[in-house]
Amino acid sequence: MANLNLATLDTSEHPNLPTSSAVLFRAKADKQYSFEKIASEIGRNEVATAAIFYGQAKASAEDIEKLSKLLDIDHGHLQSLLGGFPDRGKSVSLPPKDPLIYRLYEIVQNYGYAYKAVMNEKFGDGIMSAISFSTKVEKETDKDGNNWAVVTWRGKWYILHLELD
Amino acid sequence: MANLNLATLDTSEHPNLPTSSAVLFRAKADKQYSFEKIASEIGRNEVATAAIFYGQAKASAEDIEKLSKLLDIDHGHLQSLLGGFPDRGKSVSLPPKDPLIYRLYEIVQNYGYAYKAVMNEKFGDGIMSAISFSTKVEKETDKDGNNWAVVTWRGKWYILHLELD
Amino acid sequence: MANLNLATLDTSEHPNLPTSSAVLFRAKADKQYSFEKIASEIGRNEVATAAIFYGQAKASAEDIEKLSKLLDIDHGHLQSLLGGFPDRGKSVSLPPKDPLIYRLYEIVQNYGYAYKAVMNEKFGDGIMSAISFSTKVEKETDKDGNNWAVVTWRGKWYILHLELD
Amino acid sequence: MANLNLATLDTSEHPNLPTSSAVLFRAKADKQYSFEKIASEIGRNEVATAAIFYGQAKASAEDIEKLSKLLDIDHGHLQSLLGGFPDRGKSVSLPPKDPLIYRLYEIVQNYGYAYKAVMNEKFGDGIMSAISFSTKVEKETDKDGNNWAVVTWRGKWYILHLELD
Amino acid sequence: MANLNLATLDTSEHPNLPTSSAVLFRAKADKQYSFEKIASEIGRNEVATAAIFYGQAKASAEDIEKLSKLLDIDHGHLQSLLGGFPDRGKSVSLPPKDPLIYRLYEIVQNYGYAYKAVMNEKFGDGIMSAISFSTKVEKETDKDGNNWAVVTWRGKWYILHLELD
Amino acid sequence: MANLNLATLDTSEHPNLPTSSAVLFRAKADKQYSFEKIASEIGRNEVATAAIFYGQAKASAEDIEKLSKLLDIDHGHLQSLLGGFPDRGKSVSLPPKDPLIYRLYEIVQNYGYAYKAVMNEKFGDGIMSAISFSTKVEKETDKDGNNWAVVTWRGKWYILHLELD
Amino acid sequence: MANLNLATLDTSEHPNLPTSSAVLFRAKADKQYSFEKIASEIGRNEVATAAIFYGQAKASAEDIEKLSKLLDIDHGHLQSLLGGFPDRGKSVSLPPKDPLIYRLYEIVQNYGYAYKAVMNEKFGDGIMSAISFSTKVEKETDKDGNNWAVVTWRGKWYILHLELD
Amino acid sequence: MANLNLATLDTSEHPNLPTSSAVLFRAKADKQYSFEKIASEIGRNEVATAAIFYGQAKASAEDIEKLSKLLDIDHGHLQSLLGGFPDRGKSVSLPPKDPLIYRLYEIVQNYGYAYKAVMNEKFGDGIMSAISFSTKVEKETDKDGNNWAVVTWRGKWYILHLELD
Amino acid sequence: MANLNLATLDTSEHPNLPTSSAVLFRAKADKQYSFEKIASEIGRNEVATAAIFYGQAKASAEDIEKLSKLLDIDHGHLQSLLGGFPDRGKSVSLPPKDPLIYRLYEIVQNYGYAYKAVMNEKFGDGIMSAISFSTKVEKETDKDGNNWAVVTWRGKWYILHLELD
Amino acid sequence: MANLNLATLDTSEHPNLPTSSAVLFRAKADKQYSFEKIASEIGRNEVATAAIFYGQAKASAEDIEKLSKLLDIDHGHLQSLLGGFPDRGKSVSLPPKDPLIYRLYEIVQNYGYAYKAVMNEKFGDGIMSAISFSTKVEKETDKDGNNWAVVTWRGKWYILHLELD
Repeated sequence: MANLNLATLDTSEHPNLPTSSAVLFRAKADKQYSFEKIASEIGRNEVATAAIFYGQAKASAEDIEKLSKLLDIDHGHLQSLLGGFPDRGKSVSLPPKDPLIYRLYEIVQNYGYAYKAVMNEKFGDGIMSAISFSTKVEKETDKDGNNWAVVTWRGKWYILHLELD
Repeated sequence: MANLNLATLDTSEHPNLPTSSAVLFRAKADKQYSFEKIASEIGRNEVATAAIFYGQAKASAEDIEKLSKLLDIDHGHLQSLLGGFPDRGKSVSLPPKDPLIYRLYEIVQNYGYAYKAVMNEKFGDGIMSAISFSTKVEKETDKDGNNWAVVTWRGKWYILHLELD
Repeated sequence: MANLNLATLDTSEHPNLPTSSAVLFRAKADKQYSFEKIASEIGRNEVATAAIFYGQAKASAEDIEKLSKLLDIDHGHLQSLLGGFPDRGKSVSLPPKDPLIYRLYEIVQNYGYAYKAVMNEKFGDGIMSAISFSTKVEKETDKDGNNWAVVTWRGKWYILHLELD
Repeated sequence: MANLNLATLDTSEHPNLPTSSAVLFRAKADKQYSFEKIASEIGRNEVATAAIFYGQAKASAEDIEKLSKLLDIDHGHLQSLLGGFPDRGKSVSLPPKDPLIYRLYEIVQNYGYAYKAVMNEKFGDGIMSAISFSTKVEKETDKDGNNWAVVTWRGKWYILHLELD
Repeated sequence: MANLNLATLDTSEHPNLPTSSAVLFRAKADKQYSFEKIASEIGRNEVATAAIFYGQAKASAEDIEKLSKLLDIDHGHLQSLLGGFPDRGKSVSLPPKDPLIYRLYEIVQNYGYAYKAVMNEKFGDGIMSAISFSTKVEKETDKDGNNWAVVTWRGKWYILHLELD
Repeated sequence: MANLNLATLDTSEHPNLPTSSAVLFRAKADKQYSFEKIASEIGRNEVATAAIFYGQAKASAEDIEKLSKLLDIDHGHLQSLLGGFPDRGKSVSLPPKDPLIYRLYEIVQNYGYAYKAVMNEKFGDGIMSAISFSTKVEKETDKDGNNWAVVTWRGKWYILHLELD
Repeated sequence: MANLNLATLDTSEHPNLPTSSAVLFRAKADKQYSFEKIASEIGRNEVATAAIFYGQAKASAEDIEKLSKLLDIDHGHLQSLLGGFPDRGKSVSLPPKDPLIYRLYEIVQNYGYAYKAVMNEKFGDGIMSAISFSTKVEKETDKDGNNWAVVTWRGKWYILHLELD
Repeated sequence: MANLNLATLDTSEHPNLPTSSAVLFRAKADKQYSFEKIASEIGRNEVATAAIFYGQAKASAEDIEKLSKLLDIDHGHLQSLLGGFPDRGKSVSLPPKDPLIYRLYEIVQNYGYAYKAVMNEKFGDGIMSAISFSTKVEKETDKDGNNWAVVTWRGKWYILHLELD
Repeated sequence: MANLNLATLDTSEHPNLPTSSAVLFRAKADKQYSFEKIASEIGRNEVATAAIFYGQAKASAEDIEKLSKLLDIDHGHLQSLLGGFPDRGKSVSLPPKDPLIYRLYEIVQNYGYAYKAVMNEKFGDGIMSAISFSTKVEKETDKDGNNWAVVTWRGKWYILHLELD
Repeated sequence: MANLNLATLDTSEHPNLPTSSAVLFRAKADKQYSFEKIASEIGRNEVATAAIFYGQAKASAEDIEKLSKLLDIDHGHLQSLLGGFPDRGKSVSLPPKDPLIYRLYEIVQNYGYAYKAVMNEKFGDGIMSAISFSTKVEKETDKDGNNWAVVTWRGKWYILHLELD
């Protein structure tokens, strides 16, 4: 019987994702694989793996080869679909409407200036990079059996310059 | 000589923050205290401390007492300013314009559906709470001397119900 | 003769609902079933049942089995359509244009801060969950024969934390 | 010592509320009264009482008299402030930014069409009035000590006509 | 020869109107009927008739029968298209772009508060219903041969309540 | 005792209305005059009178003289305030938030294309002028004691040209 | 060899123009006719001719006959496509993105109030009609060989009334 | 007696115009001068003169000297107010709300692509400059006594390049 | 093996680009050509070449001939696709969502007024043309092996006029 | 006599810039200094200098000392005004309304994807930093006496990572 707890993609709801998203999610549903499974098979982080599926991260030649084998997708076809460069940021509307994504956004909305103040004092005038950046999601279960999601962001700090060297 | 690396507040730029924000930031500037200093003095997390300053978190009676002493603000006055409930979310425009805050937002925009897919598969149909929630910012320096900001979010997972019990 | 008082779905008007919505509403129209009938057959609340049809609530394995039988939809097909996780919130535009939905929205717009003030004083600094939440719609007829709609929301109260434990 | 759990108003955050809101909330803070107290004194529902404070409901002559006495506000002054007709809906931004109000809004966003479908089938083609309407907030505590907020809406049903009589 | 003064519908311009709109307007064009003709045949007001065509008003069983005969549309097909409940308000963008509709909107934009002030003083605190409502368009020609459009709105007045009975 | 049913203006809520609005409404409140009273005294329609108060209609020299006398406002002062040309349309936000004004707007939103179709067929390709235009609000009470608001719009029809003569 | 300086229409870029636009532009491309040519053949102004092609102006019976002959389009087909009334204003987004159209818009944005002030003083309180209106584009070449575009607008002036006659 | 047909400025309605606008319009009102008068005195076009008053055009040293004398404004003061560079485009909201300005905008909205097509065919791929640009407003009265506003735009044509020379 | 570092186009993500974009990018992918290669073959700048592919720049007859040969696209077909005039500006949303394009935008957002102030003082009151304009992208590698992108804009300066000659 | 070609700041037009902007621009106007002069005195690039004035760049301790001396501003006062961290991006509206800034924006809007494609092929999947970034404006005069503005951007290239190290 089918697993009812796998992330899927319905292109009626996401008409502007790249063609690769439809192909990858279809294969994932056929195989009944979770992102945890796929990530461990291709040796990448789960969030990065899902980001490849949503067209938000670039797959390497090695990723494509592994995904092709794991998901039984023709290698040349997958290569042609994933060969270009991601056009990021289109999948989430502004502000996000889905409750799960909205809450991530709400944290930025509420604590944005608190983060800025603390980071500026800790690191100086600059930004935490969202490019030289990694992230992960972990699950903790406390002693009362409650689950907690732990999200970690790690980004390089860049000082803002504005002078010609 | 004045420290040029302290977060300050200019009410011309933020005319709709609560009155308490102006009072607290003025005192912070007079004392030349960092949020690290204030947080350690009142025994709260740095981000939570900054959130109180921006009117995004409620101060407890104990917080008010400690802030009043630490910053030389009349206790009754601070109590009356901080006695109500925060009206959150107004300080950050949509989308954020400041580069530091924009990058936090960009992570949600780019990876929102990747987080959703991974979290749904890990925890089921629900959300990571932004209310039963804690966060921190840490600084790491790698072997090449580069600084990295590490942001952690920890929120309780709530399964979505829609039935009367 | 066809019942002219059944909720239907025209995908020209809702091109971005999930595929499952079109399938379920088509079967509902063929069977000429009301949501009251379907809800009582599958043992769920009417609003939750309609929410499943609009892709706003996740159907359980049991829901899928019952819906499949009741509506003569192939079980495997329905399972594959409803197996993923809902991507919520896309069906209603901002602000709502339909007069019925607008009035629900208008109540929040007019009385939002009144609800906040009363709830904060009654429960403290936090929120009424929209996730650990149930709702129902009831019909009352007064002595003059006027009908009244009674909507009930019941959500768990969560206190806002912002500290690492 | 001041009660830290009373709803207050900071006009820096709400510069476009009517003058009466500032006057009423100031007096409420001075008296340290909750809305529960004020509502019971003037014989109105708590939400309606708070709505008067936010300029979203019209006070009757009797309300004004009672509020004037209870809060020690000059009767003529209060009468001139509350004599006009409310200009509703300006206090909540679109979409709401405060987490508590956002969740009320989110319920409408997610379940708007489910409510519409269920109400249309139950009552016919029309709307639940937001004008011939009453509401209340109640607190329930379950056996595990968790608090639940229960919001009730009761609105008259009006059938949509479009014909000259 | 074809009449060049009949309202028609081009679905390229209105992709989100209900399927019934396309069917009804196609038949109207084939028959070369004006709304005046159709309205008088089905015994309804012209604006209400056009509103049915645009999916903004619900057709009764009798309307469907008459439209089916008048326009040679299969009765069962029309019944299935018009059997649900209208999802109103999507056809006009905000603000309206068509000059004719924009001018109707402009009247509300310019005189909205003047109407509110006059109505509030005449009727009290409430609204003119847009639901218990009828409207018509009439043509007058003055002595200089100029045409004038006269639009009438007639809506029930509802006093705003906010108390539980 | 003060009349609690007179339209007033609170400039906190309308900071961008012209200075004349504040002056006229203050005088109206002092005199405790309704728009019906003022309109009959200056010999203009009630809606037009209210439109002058809101800065949406230009007062003639005669209007200014009469308003000055009726409301005890210095004639020169009123003349200098009302001497320019109205800058219309700023008072109503988009879409309107006040429930009374929203319902006027909703009529245009729902029936805009129905009006267009009926008017085009009746008058040809053009518009009903919102400039060569008059309007009124009337009150009807039916045999059951219900009040009905009747709004009339009368605008000249202009055919759309696009050719040099 | 094809003329590379003819205005064409790509429906991928303009999916919501009327069907007639696609038909007319296709025929124009096949014939390799400029708007100057077409306008002179049908005896209308160039801008008006192009406006018919974009669905912004109504073609007369005579226009349709001439266009049908000139462009070899079946007369009955063209008549059915152009028989209704234009639904204007959808082709240009807000603000315009194309640089040529943006600059027209920018003139209104920068000098809108200057035009208003000058026109009000010259003509009184009213508007220049965009309906009883004609326009043309002319080309001038100065002595240095520079080209200048000269756009003329000629609109009737209507005084704003607001009184019942 | 004061002229009731002079353009004035109320800074409540335009809080973000430059300080010079308030000073110039105040002096204009005191002198009771029309823009026609001022323009002819300073030797500039009426629209350009009004544009200086609204902060949309830069005054030359000679303009400042003449305006200072004509309007009795201290020369040094006017020079300091007008010495910088205009920050254009803020006075008109998007889309314009005032009916007069809206109609100018509507012409661009309706005929934007018609202008583009005609201009592209006449001049090639480029734009009519809004910078190397002049404009005027003229009044015509036809034989029936109707007034017509004639607006002329004259802009240099620039071909779009995209190559390094 | 396919090159994974070539820019490609997925029309699901860009449904409103011109048909020519799909044709050109398909041929580019088939040939596995970079823009550097194509630009050098047709003798144009890389950015201008890419702009032709995205429908943002007009191809000359010579460009079309060269592209047709280089990419094996039927000359007549390419000529008919590229024969019209570009309808620019639709490909980038506002604000840009893709991180690379957002950063270009951010530079304008942050330093827009700094550029204006410096340019105005250097050149007078006017603009740097975006039409009489060229641009290029260069790659520099510093001694530490870091790559730097250098973008150059060169636009003619036009003084703003507003007078008839 | 005053220089009419210096950039100035009118706080009516920019009410939300930091207090330091008003102070610095006031002193600049008093001294009648250009940014070229100030930049050369403090040893920074002109654009960076202007960015400090607009609150978009952080001044170093040395900058503050030099600005204080050069502009006769009290050192302690300037230090307290400039001691915090810039809150960037608020000065430019979206899209920019001023013609000069709009054209910078238009370049990004038109050529954004062309830049992305060229940069991705040249540098890989990543971004040109707007933080590790410098910029300058230069003036060129060609042999015909035309002025050209040359803007250079130089930003470090960062490859997008998404993996934990």
